[in-house]
Amino acid sequence: MPLRFDAAELQSYLDEVFPQVRGLFVIDEVHEDHLKMRMPVKEAHLRPGGTVSGPSMFALADCGMYAAILSHLGKEALAVTTNCAIDFMRKPEAGRDLYTICRIHKLGRVLVVGDAMIYSDGVDKPVARASLTYSIPPK
Amino acid sequence: MPLRFDAAELQSYLDEVFPQVRGLFVIDEVHEDHLKMRMPVKEAHLRPGGTVSGPSMFALADCGMYAAILSHLGKEALAVTTNCAIDFMRKPEAGRDLYTICRIHKLGRVLVVGDAMIYSDGVDKPVARASLTYSIPPK
Amino acid sequence: MPLRFDAAELQSYLDEVFPQVRGLFVIDEVHEDHLKMRMPVKEAHLRPGGTVSGPSMFALADCGMYAAILSHLGKEALAVTTNCAIDFMRKPEAGRDLYTICRIHKLGRVLVVGDAMIYSDGVDKPVARASLTYSIPPK
Amino acid sequence: MPLRFDAAELQSYLDEVFPQVRGLFVIDEVHEDHLKMRMPVKEAHLRPGGTVSGPSMFALADCGMYAAILSHLGKEALAVTTNCAIDFMRKPEAGRDLYTICRIHKLGRVLVVGDAMIYSDGVDKPVARASLTYSIPPK
Repeated sequence: MPLRFDAAELQSYLDEVFPQVRGLFVIDEVHEDHLKMRMPVKEAHLRPGGTVSGPSMFALADCGMYAAILSHLGKEALAVTTNCAIDFMRKPEAGRDLYTICRIHKLGRVLVVGDAMIYSDGVDKPVARASLTYSIPPK
Repeated sequence: MPLRFDAAELQSYLDEVFPQVRGLFVIDEVHEDHLKMRMPVKEAHLRPGGTVSGPSMFALADCGMYAAILSHLGKEALAVTTNCAIDFMRKPEAGRDLYTICRIHKLGRVLVVGDAMIYSDGVDKPVARASLTYSIPPK
Repeated sequence: MPLRFDAAELQSYLDEVFPQVRGLFVIDEVHEDHLKMRMPVKEAHLRPGGTVSGPSMFALADCGMYAAILSHLGKEALAVTTNCAIDFMRKPEAGRDLYTICRIHKLGRVLVVGDAMIYSDGVDKPVARASLTYSIPPK
Repeated sequence: MPLRFDAAELQSYLDEVFPQVRGLFVIDEVHEDHLKMRMPVKEAHLRPGGTVSGPSMFALADCGMYAAILSHLGKEALAVTTNCAIDFMRKPEAGRDLYTICRIHKLGRVLVVGDAMIYSDGVDKPVARASLTYSIPPK
């Protein structure tokens, strides 16, 4: 699947269309078969004990997969999250950024399906995994 | 399943242990078989077009189910979200609060499983539904 | 949502289009807001200890929801399962039929979303729950 | 994670404890980080058009992941499926076996979480993907 953006172009486009999440999520890498997005961990994401909240991890997976879809479909794309199944497997480590690796398994005309693995920066084993489905509205 | 809290006591306890979400979620009703939690919609939840974001709905389902578990297990309870499957079915209506009705289907020694339906206040058809699993750590 | 079939008509139509599952699933009731389908438990469904296998419960949920969709959309309908999230909560009791209660939450032009609760006949607490999504192919 | 079985030993053990599925699923490969299981496609799995049914794919994912857990935990292991989220992405091709590649992401004392990708033999793009959770009962 060819790419329509490099990382800087995609970041700049996301900042423009999603001003609400500007600064929350950073696109580290965009490849044909995966995208890497980082979430610099801030006070608002934390729960007692310094761990990152579930909704923050959900937001990272959702935003990363959305960016991965845009990277292939380009600016005209609309994609609406219709389903997410997420497993929280380990407590994220305090004081470390989280990042997600997002892969698209199906890029259909109507539905897009992919997986997001979430890691604490510098730690091998994943903290969470999510599978997400997006609907592409008819033009 | 008998209750350990009424709505006011449970709200006060949640505010104490989860100061990060104070004011974001309001417990409207606590019953033996379900709990109703409301999310007064604020600017930060919104996406372009006035709709509420997916992560905000996820947070509402997760917090509502956590409160439902506490209502039965009491203050000594620990419960960690291990899995959530959420379907986003309709766009929430702009300018309306969201609320969730949470029901527990299994309250086991190790795992708790329940469903959260999410509605726009005053609208019949649900905007989202989630099923959630929590793990109860051994004491 | 009005109905296009009563239980006997729907059973007869399912037997015609799905001869593979004839006799495996019995439509007990069809209502505007839910459908009840029964699975007479047979040797092939069992696992050691007399319990019903997970794939058999999955099949019951999937077939029940498919029948619920047909009950509203009629014979011209095509619907393809795209997603299922299922929680196995309790061991089904040996020697009892299983049944499912299926409810549709969204009957869209492109996607249908619903829930299936699964019970051992005569037992109050559910053994499993599933949420399912179907895609309606364009004509 | 070290292995307790090679493929032949694991196949023989599965045939012994799950006589119901003997001949339905074949363990092709067992590695430290994944297991490959094949489902020789038979008449009973098929739906109109020669495609494999959803419950058959569910059964393959579930059985493959169960075998992957056994490969690490050994004969004394008990593991009960508690949750599965499965996405059906493409129609399996008629006349081809299916196989699954199963990977464990978390092998905890209480919960095991993993992913199963399902392919038509000889075709690059996956037909389905599943994430599964198993509970390990206390001894």
